[in-house]
Amino acid sequence: MTKHIAFVGLGAMGSAMSANLLRAGFTVAGYDMNRRAVEALGAQGGVAAESAAAAAREADVLILMVVNTAQARAVLFEQGALDALPAGGAVCLMATCPPDEVRALAREVTAQSKVFVDCPVSGGVAGARAASLTILVAAPLGDLEGLRAVFEAMGKRIFHVGTEAGQGASVKAINQVLCGVHIAAAAEALALGERAGLDPEIVLEILSGSAAGSWMLSDRGPRMLQDTPEVTSAIDIFVKDLGIALETGRAAKMGLPLASIAMQLFLAESAAGGGRDDDSQVIRAYRRLNGL
Amino acid sequence: MTKHIAFVGLGAMGSAMSANLLRAGFTVAGYDMNRRAVEALGAQGGVAAESAAAAAREADVLILMVVNTAQARAVLFEQGALDALPAGGAVCLMATCPPDEVRALAREVTAQSKVFVDCPVSGGVAGARAASLTILVAAPLGDLEGLRAVFEAMGKRIFHVGTEAGQGASVKAINQVLCGVHIAAAAEALALGERAGLDPEIVLEILSGSAAGSWMLSDRGPRMLQDTPEVTSAIDIFVKDLGIALETGRAAKMGLPLASIAMQLFLAESAAGGGRDDDSQVIRAYRRLNGL
Repeated sequence: MTKHIAFVGLGAMGSAMSANLLRAGFTVAGYDMNRRAVEALGAQGGVAAESAAAAAREADVLILMVVNTAQARAVLFEQGALDALPAGGAVCLMATCPPDEVRALAREVTAQSKVFVDCPVSGGVAGARAASLTILVAAPLGDLEGLRAVFEAMGKRIFHVGTEAGQGASVKAINQVLCGVHIAAAAEALALGERAGLDPEIVLEILSGSAAGSWMLSDRGPRMLQDTPEVTSAIDIFVKDLGIALETGRAAKMGLPLASIAMQLFLAESAAGGGRDDDSQVIRAYRRLNGL
Repeated sequence: MTKHIAFVGLGAMGSAMSANLLRAGFTVAGYDMNRRAVEALGAQGGVAAESAAAAAREADVLILMVVNTAQARAVLFEQGALDALPAGGAVCLMATCPPDEVRALAREVTAQSKVFVDCPVSGGVAGARAASLTILVAAPLGDLEGLRAVFEAMGKRIFHVGTEAGQGASVKAINQVLCGVHIAAAAEALALGERAGLDPEIVLEILSGSAAGSWMLSDRGPRMLQDTPEVTSAIDIFVKDLGIALETGRAAKMGLPLASIAMQLFLAESAAGGGRDDDSQVIRAYRRLNGL
């Protein structure tokens, strides 16, 4: 039975996920370069570890909720977390990473007699806080079953998407193709409404309730009509995630024309200085492009 | 009070809409080049008119549910329906047409002392049958109010999108930007899943229930996984509607990069012989493009 969890990467999502693991009765030793986040976990009943290796030392499972595979490699190899993890322990990579990098990492981890589970998540900070994440698990079924209680403490929809590392990352990349294209498409449609001199609130109401609707239109659309909306997810997150999606296409040899166009719009908005603004503001790229 | 309606264009949608008008207590004189559709309306209690002009002769309202403005012009001018319509009668153009063509038509109709109402619909054949269409009305508010009972007999959501002809057509074009891009994006995502060797049913289930979801993904996605699905709306409808969307952008001077890419994919599928197949089959363009 999994009892002891090491959790590395205590950002907005990781902090919420580790808190949910504590609430579910697991012991959680947490580590992050941000000392304040580590201490916050300690104050909630977790172990505030001094290093990634220290967190991993008595763990059954090492969860990585870091930014990318470069950080995952640094934690596992340079900072010694993989060596510290007891034999037979499982490394769960929950970050959004390119499938081929995940496959390479899996080979190196399993070569050292540790289990590797490719299990990225969808649902953002809100889903992390509500323990309602979608978790995309690619691993032998036995490994998933052994970890099911861990996943269920953090998420609501646990999918077994395949048995091989990289397949979870692939599904996440496909998910982000649609998320990114849908945000950019909403911006394209609402900007056309502005150009046509229509009332943007009425246009948004019509589109949201018709066959033109999408989850992203309903969520991001209202913020596209605001000048400086709250940041729920930044432009640069989609520069990263659509970059991973396009890299997934390149590695699998698959042209992704819509995703590549959407990427250019997020990139342009980042280039113009909006990288840390809410991703709904990709509409500004359309406004600049067309002199609105 | 509007009592007598002339209805020209008794295709799948027009037949259902005129039947709903009969059910609501209006008298309806219908005309179509397809004599069988006219007789079907007669059998339901409507007047099977011998010509468009004959249908319009005693009407308060002339509804045009034809394919495009060329057909609308033929009905109004060549076939004499506008002259036949009593003075003060209203021409309601409910087809999907380019805004600048709608504006031009409105000028010619109002120059002959008739009312023109730009009022395209969204909701397809299913919405037409269920009297649940979304109707996008651009006209002076008084004209809309005078026709409200007519619209409510056919639709559920009646929007006053502006006072000038062409604004309804613009909103419809914007709606179709999103519908077309969302169908193509769903195909791009599901085809990438196929390329990555993932289970397409699981991928679709994950995407449909996440932030990647759209109305079109839920509706068209399952048919993308079928070889010869039922045709609910054809590829060539989107060749037409995205063509109108791009023409709307050109006329308003607005670049629509995502819509233009989506258009090329529907066009390619039509070019390959799939024009009359279900629009979900735009996924075949992705498969061919990438040798799947």
